[in-house]
Amino acid sequence: MTQPIETGPDFSKAELMPAIAQDLQTGDVLMMAYMNAESYAETVATGRAVYFSRSRNKLWRKGEESGNVQKVDSIYVDCDRDTILLKVTQIGDAACHEGYRSCFFRQVTPEGLKVIGERVFDPAEVYGKK
Amino acid sequence: MTQPIETGPDFSKAELMPAIAQDLQTGDVLMMAYMNAESYAETVATGRAVYFSRSRNKLWRKGEESGNVQKVDSIYVDCDRDTILLKVTQIGDAACHEGYRSCFFRQVTPEGLKVIGERVFDPAEVYGKK
Repeated sequence: MTQPIETGPDFSKAELMPAIAQDLQTGDVLMMAYMNAESYAETVATGRAVYFSRSRNKLWRKGEESGNVQKVDSIYVDCDRDTILLKVTQIGDAACHEGYRSCFFRQVTPEGLKVIGERVFDPAEVYGKK
Repeated sequence: MTQPIETGPDFSKAELMPAIAQDLQTGDVLMMAYMNAESYAETVATGRAVYFSRSRNKLWRKGEESGNVQKVDSIYVDCDRDTILLKVTQIGDAACHEGYRSCFFRQVTPEGLKVIGERVFDPAEVYGKK
């Protein structure tokens, strides 16, 4: 093998790259967020998913407010090493801040978006919104 | 409900948005690519996954070269409507141009990347590379 040793995502290609969180048990795609090198490194070091929030422009330790952390079982990269796949155990059963198991809780139908996901918690209670 | 009618992804938020293709049968995440409004519209109209290639700067009708098209069973959007999830049937059993079922065929391990995916075809034969 003449390839250089590749150890993980290639952040020289993209400072921020998509990271997909998939439920380890069910295989459901829970969410997609972004990681930079720092959040990726912390994810690997801690075994908990840490993303980079583009809107808040800082590390986003998933579950830091809600307690719904993601325990990372395994990490994969795609062929270009510019997309990350995490297999996770979602604590609290809901990845979505809107209280659904998965952020992909709506299906596109000819009649518009249809909620197909299961709501696990009430965001108003968890995040204290009125 | 006072929300405006939402019919699909909100391309006013992002001209290009990530689209995740998940195998309808196995639940495996096959790949992640980008869609713009035009590729999304063609995907909906034709029932086959059409992405937007950032490197070639044009529509990418998945499988146009290899024949390995993706038949789209259903489409989902995330809570922000800026990420798309497709459940697909992958014709030819391989989504990855490197011949693997999934583009996420490598796992990050302490010893470096480890191939865990199954190779279905030889890219040299399919794409005619030497």
